[in-house]
Amino acid sequence: MSRRIRLVIAYDGTSYVGWQLQDNGVSVQQRLNEAALFITGEQIQLHGSGRTDSGVHARAQVAHFDTNARMPAEKFAIALNMRLPRDIRVLHSEEVPKEFHARFFAKNKTYRYTVQTGLHADVFGRFTALHVHTPLDYDRMQRAAAYALGEHDFKAFMSADCKITNTIRTIAKSEWTQNGNYLHYEVSANGFLYNMVRILVGTLLEIGGGKLPEDAIARALTSGLRADAGATAPPHGLCLQRVQYDDFDTEEVLRRI
Amino acid sequence: MSRRIRLVIAYDGTSYVGWQLQDNGVSVQQRLNEAALFITGEQIQLHGSGRTDSGVHARAQVAHFDTNARMPAEKFAIALNMRLPRDIRVLHSEEVPKEFHARFFAKNKTYRYTVQTGLHADVFGRFTALHVHTPLDYDRMQRAAAYALGEHDFKAFMSADCKITNTIRTIAKSEWTQNGNYLHYEVSANGFLYNMVRILVGTLLEIGGGKLPEDAIARALTSGLRADAGATAPPHGLCLQRVQYDDFDTEEVLRRI
Repeated sequence: MSRRIRLVIAYDGTSYVGWQLQDNGVSVQQRLNEAALFITGEQIQLHGSGRTDSGVHARAQVAHFDTNARMPAEKFAIALNMRLPRDIRVLHSEEVPKEFHARFFAKNKTYRYTVQTGLHADVFGRFTALHVHTPLDYDRMQRAAAYALGEHDFKAFMSADCKITNTIRTIAKSEWTQNGNYLHYEVSANGFLYNMVRILVGTLLEIGGGKLPEDAIARALTSGLRADAGATAPPHGLCLQRVQYDDFDTEEVLRRI
Repeated sequence: MSRRIRLVIAYDGTSYVGWQLQDNGVSVQQRLNEAALFITGEQIQLHGSGRTDSGVHARAQVAHFDTNARMPAEKFAIALNMRLPRDIRVLHSEEVPKEFHARFFAKNKTYRYTVQTGLHADVFGRFTALHVHTPLDYDRMQRAAAYALGEHDFKAFMSADCKITNTIRTIAKSEWTQNGNYLHYEVSANGFLYNMVRILVGTLLEIGGGKLPEDAIARALTSGLRADAGATAPPHGLCLQRVQYDDFDTEEVLRRI
């Protein structure tokens, strides 16, 4: 009698080709598959809430898989962690109804992009923050970020080689916070196009550096042209922060553990 | 005409055998020597404010060296950084009087030890925080830490194979702060014995876990016996946070950059 198990997973993406299984290197999913094979004897099919690129991190990724193993559902987290490298941790495991799907049922996702300002790159942030040593106008970036709020066609904020047709998304949060030399951009949406957050951040940084006008996001949304948005920011500043479902929120799990 | 240059250096100690040159691996000092040789053509003698062990980090180490190179003193930071790996950064360089000595003139040093609580180790803190999944009584550790304050003979808090004779030190600060799952112990003193901070932390963690009485530090200070203190905490949670001189404070440098 197979059961469906939901996982909440954190990973440091530095050493991986990304979340998704790929031929050209080790993915987070591959490591989870290997750990699951060891403890269940099964070749599991792991479905994440979405892909993350090479070098992108997750504070709280959600995934599900089916298993016939008879281990109590809540024990999977500890059992998998014993077989996982230290840059991947399963924070939570539980049984869910067979209807649950980590990707299709996700209602909202939050990403956070971290920028470190100042003359020298912080040695402790070198894998998790983009170092920008040129001046950034924080208030300008804050005002500019608000143009992304609401429902828009984000096709200008999508990697040019992506062939998806429905490019309309709704952004519920688009906001910077500051903590000393560290600037954090948080963006929440019902879904993201390929490279959307990194292009938004790249655009905001060019606005902050004076290379693009303050309303550059609005202009690119109107034109729909990738060329009107900024460059794609590097992956290592990006982190999948939170995934929300109708009846499940990773933030509540993180609060409990 | 040789000049004396003072550096403020940050490093992630994970990949190094420690600050000091050693035969058994690469030290932070070796990397700085190599970078200095490249830009000055000289084999410099670098004097740090003190050693840090393998795996121990520095947010602000101070060191000095003499050079005949004619580069402006404040340019050394950027020039050295171009030749240094990304886990070592020179944050500041300036000329100082020939009398200055990074070690002998240091009046106060501050170390910070980071502990992460909770069931699972944080993937992002795995090189900079000690993960403790068993319960810790924070208030008890806070009260216990105060016993270390003031002038004492700290010989119970010294690695047994250290042969130093003057083991009297004065601690000006010994305090925990809490930020979610992260606990930080900060300790300031006019000097530290070998492994002193790590033994203080090991003792405090055993007090917090109920294995040692709340006044264990006072008892060990009185007996002078290493056996009355706790185990030596692992190095990776430790960071040299600040070095102060009569007329120079790394904290002011960090505030400016």
